[in-house]
Amino acid sequence: MPAELADPRRTVALACRILANSGLVEDILGHVSVRVGHDRMLVRCRGPQEEGLLFTLHRDVHLVDLDGSGDLPAGWVVPNELPIHGELLRARPEIDAVVHCHPPAVLLAGVEEVPLRPVFGAYHIPAARLAVDGIPVYPRAGLVRRPELGRELVETMGSSTVCLMRGHGITTVGSGAHAVEQAVVRALAVDVLARVSVERARLGDRAADLTAEDLAELPDLGSSFNDLNMWRHHIARLRLAGLALE
Amino acid sequence: MPAELADPRRTVALACRILANSGLVEDILGHVSVRVGHDRMLVRCRGPQEEGLLFTLHRDVHLVDLDGSGDLPAGWVVPNELPIHGELLRARPEIDAVVHCHPPAVLLAGVEEVPLRPVFGAYHIPAARLAVDGIPVYPRAGLVRRPELGRELVETMGSSTVCLMRGHGITTVGSGAHAVEQAVVRALAVDVLARVSVERARLGDRAADLTAEDLAELPDLGSSFNDLNMWRHHIARLRLAGLALE
Amino acid sequence: MPAELADPRRTVALACRILANSGLVEDILGHVSVRVGHDRMLVRCRGPQEEGLLFTLHRDVHLVDLDGSGDLPAGWVVPNELPIHGELLRARPEIDAVVHCHPPAVLLAGVEEVPLRPVFGAYHIPAARLAVDGIPVYPRAGLVRRPELGRELVETMGSSTVCLMRGHGITTVGSGAHAVEQAVVRALAVDVLARVSVERARLGDRAADLTAEDLAELPDLGSSFNDLNMWRHHIARLRLAGLALE
Amino acid sequence: MPAELADPRRTVALACRILANSGLVEDILGHVSVRVGHDRMLVRCRGPQEEGLLFTLHRDVHLVDLDGSGDLPAGWVVPNELPIHGELLRARPEIDAVVHCHPPAVLLAGVEEVPLRPVFGAYHIPAARLAVDGIPVYPRAGLVRRPELGRELVETMGSSTVCLMRGHGITTVGSGAHAVEQAVVRALAVDVLARVSVERARLGDRAADLTAEDLAELPDLGSSFNDLNMWRHHIARLRLAGLALE
Repeated sequence: MPAELADPRRTVALACRILANSGLVEDILGHVSVRVGHDRMLVRCRGPQEEGLLFTLHRDVHLVDLDGSGDLPAGWVVPNELPIHGELLRARPEIDAVVHCHPPAVLLAGVEEVPLRPVFGAYHIPAARLAVDGIPVYPRAGLVRRPELGRELVETMGSSTVCLMRGHGITTVGSGAHAVEQAVVRALAVDVLARVSVERARLGDRAADLTAEDLAELPDLGSSFNDLNMWRHHIARLRLAGLALE
Repeated sequence: MPAELADPRRTVALACRILANSGLVEDILGHVSVRVGHDRMLVRCRGPQEEGLLFTLHRDVHLVDLDGSGDLPAGWVVPNELPIHGELLRARPEIDAVVHCHPPAVLLAGVEEVPLRPVFGAYHIPAARLAVDGIPVYPRAGLVRRPELGRELVETMGSSTVCLMRGHGITTVGSGAHAVEQAVVRALAVDVLARVSVERARLGDRAADLTAEDLAELPDLGSSFNDLNMWRHHIARLRLAGLALE
Repeated sequence: MPAELADPRRTVALACRILANSGLVEDILGHVSVRVGHDRMLVRCRGPQEEGLLFTLHRDVHLVDLDGSGDLPAGWVVPNELPIHGELLRARPEIDAVVHCHPPAVLLAGVEEVPLRPVFGAYHIPAARLAVDGIPVYPRAGLVRRPELGRELVETMGSSTVCLMRGHGITTVGSGAHAVEQAVVRALAVDVLARVSVERARLGDRAADLTAEDLAELPDLGSSFNDLNMWRHHIARLRLAGLALE
Repeated sequence: MPAELADPRRTVALACRILANSGLVEDILGHVSVRVGHDRMLVRCRGPQEEGLLFTLHRDVHLVDLDGSGDLPAGWVVPNELPIHGELLRARPEIDAVVHCHPPAVLLAGVEEVPLRPVFGAYHIPAARLAVDGIPVYPRAGLVRRPELGRELVETMGSSTVCLMRGHGITTVGSGAHAVEQAVVRALAVDVLARVSVERARLGDRAADLTAEDLAELPDLGSSFNDLNMWRHHIARLRLAGLALE
């Protein structure tokens, strides 16, 4: 693999570890990709000694085209759900990274139709904004292993940066130089929104929606604040947990 | 003990640690066995310095016949519930391993009669398939320490690979070269199904069952994917927790 | 302190750590005592560098009489609630150890009047037996710092080995050579019963009581099995958590 | 920075770590300040390698005036919500420290209007006293980044030592030589009250209020007991978690 891919490869591996260490992945399911050039990507694959996302190594991330073809070492395979990555990167040129994972609270919110309403503000501004904007719901619970299912997901998602897949999980995307970090932090924000919403549902779901006046006091603090500080926080949590990537 | 039993003995000890490290065993109750030849088994026993399943050592696993007789070192005894293992291995020649444990979520689902319905799909395919197939329920809460109670359990279980024991726990089985791994991973899948079902019950249990169309997109990814990847994941979690078996 | 008290002193310190490491104590409240001779006890005191029960040291355990008088080093004081220990040991000669702690699930069960019914069996036999026998409830939420309040508690408790103190916590006792271990394991069993009962209440509290037939299959496995295995398990958990007592 | 500020700076950094290690801060949001002289403060700022409150270093704490002006190193900025600190310290001369954080249970209690009633006693006396006294609620969910919003908060708070900010978090204050420790311990007590209240709400919120007789047996054990013991406990928990501040 070319030397200039060392950094994005490492970022994809770290993203997988962060998702697992934060509970958005419970064991072996989920994957992350980042675009390389126009029509290729680095994607988290599974090898002969697969240990789950929490233990992802550099060697688990490989370069393939948008159909998943590439020069993988013996024993490694691309994810069954490669079309989630391939079809999103093909259809939306502004996207540079894709995260797919299975947060338990999102599963619950999805199948039990818990509303994801905007009722909190400065508690977590990016999650509040997701609730204001609304999160599209892909209604099919099957494995997205055929390109046509990937295209269905793309269509459901529209121009959104996140998508809830009912009975399954979520897909989030990011753009630009820190696309992976952005997609991971968006997944974490969806999870916060789902966790709070599920807990609220158990308490009666009585909270009022945010007022226009509240919304006016919830500025976008920018990607440097929201994405990179949060990313570094989760890298530090990996370090603390003995999960730093060498 | 013959040298060729070193590997299965180690696998049984690791299985005990995995069940405890995953919360399916809270302290000292539960056991695992693997068939040896036609009518013997290696089973997790309790010794004079018993510390619970999380701290199982090689020396805790011993060779006995299906009635629990064998040449145990001084101070070690077979489980009180040996008939769970003995009667299942006697009655079902296709079975090579038995797991018995007490997952808290399964206890709750059992006594409160929480339905274990198939409402999710790609979130966790093996757990979804268990829900589709249905899980037999053994209704008695007592200790299965007499062979006739073991035979009752065998009868309830029929040809199923898992059984919920109301007010008590679960029993799961596995077959073939990776029988122990399979039985452990099945126990983990029952636990996922119970945890999601209990959480859903608290939210109203409104989810619709999976459709035939969804089911058609939930392939069996095979034992190598489902069982061995998951097993390695949990071995890695033991390592991370400082619980690797020397 | 005489050399023959080194062992019971150590046991009291370990008991404090186990209670905290198991979540029955959240921070600095709670204490453990063991009888010495007829009318003295070793009790967990608080010193000038108090760090909470999880970090109890040998030097925190001191010999006092049943009124709390003794030769404490400068800066150490007996618990405010010494009468819990003193009055129980005075009134009941068969008792040799007392545990007082604040398990969160027991608090909830107490104030919300969640029934602690016997609905499970082999899942946890000692907890099931507590539910069958019934747990007395001391209804006052105040600090038990006067002897007359201690005597009220003794009266409520009767001949029981455990007591729920509403809005406050629990007190448990043990007898004989392993009195401390027994009192700790009884506290853990009350906590299991409360945790399951609270979770069941959230699911509707529909479970049927155990039948006489079930009860007949729930033998008392004895103190060696129930108390000492469990104690060693929790000692091993302390070691794993980096909390072994030197 | 003058040498005499080394200790308060360290205390502010530890306070941030304790709040995060106790779950009152989930990642990067929240801050702590301590008054210096009449019109300056040491406050937790954010630098170019920000990693979240759990990983706060001495270098993250800087001296600024009550409007947030000061000689910060390149790349460090004061919190967006500096007016929480500046306006409280300006308006209330008796206050010497301010804590702002986002405990999840308080968020839930606030938006779902869960009553924070006094139903427990010796379980946690400082939390019981907060419930008796009542906790003021600031109703706006926006970011408190303008001085006029800070002054609104001050007005809502009145002479209280704690304030619930609906849809946002909490602010607590402390006074005197151990002002930071006191403000942190008050935040922990608000969290205990909110956690118990949320759990009680799920069980029906049937508990009776404390009686006058119970209240009479709940003495204030003093700041040395309540604040400093608790602070040392949480410092010890940081040490155990590998989070001691060098």
